[in-house]
Amino acid sequence: MRNTLYTDGLEKCAANYAPLTPLGFLERSASVYPQHIAVIDGVVQKTWREVEQRCRRAASAFAQHGIGKNDTVAILAPNSLAMYESHFAVPMAGAVLNAINTRLDADSVAFILRHGEAKALLVDRELAELARAALVKIKPTSIELVIDIETDGAPPPKPATAPLGNLTYADFLAAGDPQFAWQPPADEWDAISLNYTSGTTGDPKGVVYHHRGAYLNALSNLVGWQMPHHPVYLWTLPMFHCNGWCFPWSLAAVAGTSVCLRQVTAASIYQAIAAHRVTHFCGAPIIMNMLINATQQEQREFSQQVDMMTAAAPPPAAVLSAMAAKGFRVTHVYGLTETYGPAVICAWHAQWDQLSRAEKAEKNARQGVRYHALEGLEVHNPETMQAVKRDGLEMGETMFRGNIVMKGYLKNPRTTARAFADGWFHSGDLGVLHSDNYLQLKDRSKDVIISGGENISSIEVEDCLYRHPQVSEAAVVAKPDEKWGETPCAFVQPTPNSTLTEAELIVYCREHLAHFKAPSKVVFGELPKTSTGKVQKFKLREVAKKLAV
Amino acid sequence: MRNTLYTDGLEKCAANYAPLTPLGFLERSASVYPQHIAVIDGVVQKTWREVEQRCRRAASAFAQHGIGKNDTVAILAPNSLAMYESHFAVPMAGAVLNAINTRLDADSVAFILRHGEAKALLVDRELAELARAALVKIKPTSIELVIDIETDGAPPPKPATAPLGNLTYADFLAAGDPQFAWQPPADEWDAISLNYTSGTTGDPKGVVYHHRGAYLNALSNLVGWQMPHHPVYLWTLPMFHCNGWCFPWSLAAVAGTSVCLRQVTAASIYQAIAAHRVTHFCGAPIIMNMLINATQQEQREFSQQVDMMTAAAPPPAAVLSAMAAKGFRVTHVYGLTETYGPAVICAWHAQWDQLSRAEKAEKNARQGVRYHALEGLEVHNPETMQAVKRDGLEMGETMFRGNIVMKGYLKNPRTTARAFADGWFHSGDLGVLHSDNYLQLKDRSKDVIISGGENISSIEVEDCLYRHPQVSEAAVVAKPDEKWGETPCAFVQPTPNSTLTEAELIVYCREHLAHFKAPSKVVFGELPKTSTGKVQKFKLREVAKKLAV
Repeated sequence: MRNTLYTDGLEKCAANYAPLTPLGFLERSASVYPQHIAVIDGVVQKTWREVEQRCRRAASAFAQHGIGKNDTVAILAPNSLAMYESHFAVPMAGAVLNAINTRLDADSVAFILRHGEAKALLVDRELAELARAALVKIKPTSIELVIDIETDGAPPPKPATAPLGNLTYADFLAAGDPQFAWQPPADEWDAISLNYTSGTTGDPKGVVYHHRGAYLNALSNLVGWQMPHHPVYLWTLPMFHCNGWCFPWSLAAVAGTSVCLRQVTAASIYQAIAAHRVTHFCGAPIIMNMLINATQQEQREFSQQVDMMTAAAPPPAAVLSAMAAKGFRVTHVYGLTETYGPAVICAWHAQWDQLSRAEKAEKNARQGVRYHALEGLEVHNPETMQAVKRDGLEMGETMFRGNIVMKGYLKNPRTTARAFADGWFHSGDLGVLHSDNYLQLKDRSKDVIISGGENISSIEVEDCLYRHPQVSEAAVVAKPDEKWGETPCAFVQPTPNSTLTEAELIVYCREHLAHFKAPSKVVFGELPKTSTGKVQKFKLREVAKKLAV
Repeated sequence: MRNTLYTDGLEKCAANYAPLTPLGFLERSASVYPQHIAVIDGVVQKTWREVEQRCRRAASAFAQHGIGKNDTVAILAPNSLAMYESHFAVPMAGAVLNAINTRLDADSVAFILRHGEAKALLVDRELAELARAALVKIKPTSIELVIDIETDGAPPPKPATAPLGNLTYADFLAAGDPQFAWQPPADEWDAISLNYTSGTTGDPKGVVYHHRGAYLNALSNLVGWQMPHHPVYLWTLPMFHCNGWCFPWSLAAVAGTSVCLRQVTAASIYQAIAAHRVTHFCGAPIIMNMLINATQQEQREFSQQVDMMTAAAPPPAAVLSAMAAKGFRVTHVYGLTETYGPAVICAWHAQWDQLSRAEKAEKNARQGVRYHALEGLEVHNPETMQAVKRDGLEMGETMFRGNIVMKGYLKNPRTTARAFADGWFHSGDLGVLHSDNYLQLKDRSKDVIISGGENISSIEVEDCLYRHPQVSEAAVVAKPDEKWGETPCAFVQPTPNSTLTEAELIVYCREHLAHFKAPSKVVFGELPKTSTGKVQKFKLREVAKKLAV
C-alpha cells in the first residue's frame, strides 16, 4: 500500500505536464510585451509580436514545403533577423536548426550539409557564393529548398551575386500563416538543433541539442548572469556558435532586444553600445583586445554599466582592469559545444571586490563552478575516474554530467558512447580544482607539453607571457626537441611599438617560471585564429615542428 | 531511415540526463558560497555549508529511523531554521514534506496527519500543545517518530510544555552523518511535498508537488521577480503555505539569506528590514496595511529598495502609493495551492511608470500573465471550454496547464480527475482577459452574488468600498433576499477615528456602481481571516444569512 501513496491517481496529464521547450518564451513575450523591440538588424526593427508572427509564418511555410519533425534545416547567415528567427521558426515546425559556421570553406560546409542531411538551406546574400560552392559538391543532395535571405538595408554583397535559391525569405514568409498553430515538441528530448564542432583534426562532429537542455540553459544564463528583464543584447558572439550560447532563447524569456552586428569591429561595437544603450554582450577574448586598443575615434561615450561574458581563455589582469576602466564588467564562463555553450561560471564573491587588481584577475582567471542547470562538474583521473584532490595542483580531466550535456553526436554512436563513458561527458580539457571548489583549466589534453618527462601546462606559460607589458597576445605549443622530447615554443603578438626581443622575453619567463617551463623559442607575429576567436594551435604546432628541424 | 536521424544513438544516459530537483541548489550554494549566511533565526545564524551539513545529517537520521521513499514527514513549526531545513532534509531522505498550517485546530491537524499517513512529525516547542491535542485524536497512528524542535534563543513556550517527542531535533541531527550521500529522486515526477488546502467547506485536500515543479517554480520566481544573487529575504509568508511559494528553493539557487520571523508585527518587520538590510519579502495584503499603519515608534529607517510580492487580493491604489512612499515596490502575483503558489504575475511595463497613481494601481490590480514555468493560462467558459473574448468583460473560469500544476490530490483520484477535466486545471476563480492579455479576477465561483438574475462580482463592490478614504478593509458576500434572490452585504473595517455611517457608504457605492451592485447592508467591524490572511467569507456568509432572517 505505502509505496503507492504518492503514485496512484497522480499521473501525468495534459493539465499538469508539458514538455520543456524554449519556444514558449517567444509566445510569452509576444503576448506580454508585443510592442517591445525584439530585434534590431541595421535599419530593420521588429517587435516581439512581429517576430512571433514572422516565426509562425516561417514554421507554416516549412510545413507547406513538407519539412517537419526531425528534418534538418541549415542556415548560413551572419547574426541577423533571419538568423534569430530561425532559432524559433525551425523548431516550431518540428525541424532541427543547423546554423553553420560562416567562416568555413566550401568543403567543410558541403560535409556538414551532407552529414546533417539538410532538407532546406537558408542563405544570407552575403554568403551566397560560399553556399553555391558547397552545393555543387553535394550532388545528388538531400536539400529540397534553398531560400535567399535578403535583408532590407543590408549592404549588397561584394561581388554582387545572382539569387541562389528557389525563393526569397520575404516570399517564403509571405506564403506562411501568421496564425499558424505550431505544436510544441511531443517529447522534451526531441532535437532542437545541430551544431558542428570546429574539430581541428578529423571531420567535424554534429552535436545534437534537445528542447529540454535549450530551455534549461536559457534560464541558467539568466539566473547565473543575473540578467534583468529587457536587456539590450549586442550580438558579437556568432549565433552559429552553440546557438549563441542559448542566448536567443534567454532573450525571449525576458523580452530583451537583440542588436545584430554584421561587422564586428571596435567602432561598430562602440557605436552600437552608445546608440542602443546595450547592457549585455558575449564574445571571445579578442573582442576585449579590440575594445581596449580602439582608437579615440573608434570609441564612444556611454553611461550604462555593460556586462560582458567571455570564454575560451582566462582574461589577463591588465585586460580586466582596462575593461573595468571603460565601463565593462567581465564575467568568465567556460563550456564546449557539447554543453550548450556556457556550463561553468566564475561566480563572483562580493569580498573579492576588496582585492588588488592582480588578485582579482587571479580569481577571475579561473573557470569556476557549475551552471545552475549543470548537475555535475568534476575533475577526474580519466584512468581511475577518481576525483582529484581539491588542492589546485593535481591535474585531471574536466568532466560534466547533467541536463545541459548534449543528446550525443549525430550518426556517431561509438564516439558518443566514448564521450559518455562512466556516466560523465569527457571534455578532453585538463584542469585542477582549488580548495574553494573552483575549477581552473590547465590545458587541452593534446596541448600539454611534455619536457624531460615533466608536464608543462601551455596555459601557465601563456599566463606568464601575458603579464609582460609588451605582450598583446600569446600562445604556447610543444616544439619537438632531441634532448627533452618537447620544449615550449611561444608565439607572441607584441603591443604596437613594442621593442621586445626574443632573448628579453625568455629571460622574463625564466624569472617567473620554473626554468624548464620557459620557452626555448619565441616567434613574433599575428596568431592564426578560428572563426570563433580560438587560437589555432595545430597551425602553430606545424610551424614549431619546422623550427625544430 | 529519416525518422531515426535524431533518435538512434542519442538516448538518455547518466552523463546527459538528471531528474530535475531543487535539492541540487543547496549543494551548489554550500559548495560555491560556504561562508555566506543562509538562515538567521533569532540569535541563531547558519552558513550555507552548515545548513547543507545539517540537512545531510537530518536526511541520514531519517534513514536510520526507517523513513525513506514516499514516506510522509509532517512538521508543525513557525518560519524557523528547522522549517527551512526540512524543505531539503526531508526530500533528501526520499520522503515527502507535509508542512502543516500552525493556526489550524487540533481536529484539522489530526485529520491531516491521518490522511497524509505521516510517519514522522517535527514539532516546534511553541506548538507542542496543538500537536499533543491532535495526536491523542489519532490512536492508533502511523506516526513512529516525534521530534521536538527546540531553537536556541527562541522564547520559551507560553505556557511551558513538557517534551512531546522521542527526541529533540538537536539530538536527531547529532546522530546523523554530515557527509551522508543522499540520492536525488529517481524520477523528477516523484513527490517532494504535500500541502493541504485551507478548504472553507469540506475536508482539506492534500495537494502533492513533485521535484520537477518545485525546481521550475523556484527558477520562475527568480526570473519573474528579477531576483539577484544573495537577496536578503524576510519570512513573513508562512512556509507552510505552498512551501513558502517555493522560495526556500529559490533562495538556495541564488544563495540568499532567509531571515525568519516568529512574530509577524509591524515593529518586527521594520526591525528586521533595518537590521538585516532585507531586500525581498512576500506576504498577504494585510502585511501592507500593517506597514502603512505602523506607529512612528514601530517604524525604522532603511535606505535599500525593498521588493514585496503579494497575492490574494489586488492592492488598492492608496495602499500601493503609501507602500511606494515608504520604499517598498509591490509586485502582484496570483496562484493557488494547486499551482505551487505564484503562477501568474502582473508583469510591469516601464511605460506604466508615467501613469497617474490611480492608473498605476488599476494596472497593478490585475493578476497578470503566466509565470515562465506555467505553459498555459486561459479564461474559459467552463461549459463549452471556449476561451472568452479578450475584452475585459466576458467572464469565465481561470484555468491553468503546465509543469507547475500539482501532481494531484492525495488519495482523491475522482476530485483530481474533475480538477483536470479537458486538460486544464479548473481553479474555480472567475476572471476576464483584457485586450493586452492580462488576467483580472472577478470572483471565486462561489462568491458571485446573483441578484435579480444579474451576476455581481463581489470584488468589484469591494474595489469601490476600498476607494472610500475611511475604509481600511472590506469584504462583500451574498445576503439572501426574498425579492432579489441575493443582494450584496458589505463587511467593513473603518479607518481609526472614522465617522462613516452605513447610509453614507451605501450612497457612496450607488454613486460609483450600478444601483443593483451597491450593498443593501453594511456591517462595521474586524474581518475574520484565515491563517494566511484571506478573509473567511464563509463566516461572513453565515452572518449575512442571519441578518436576512
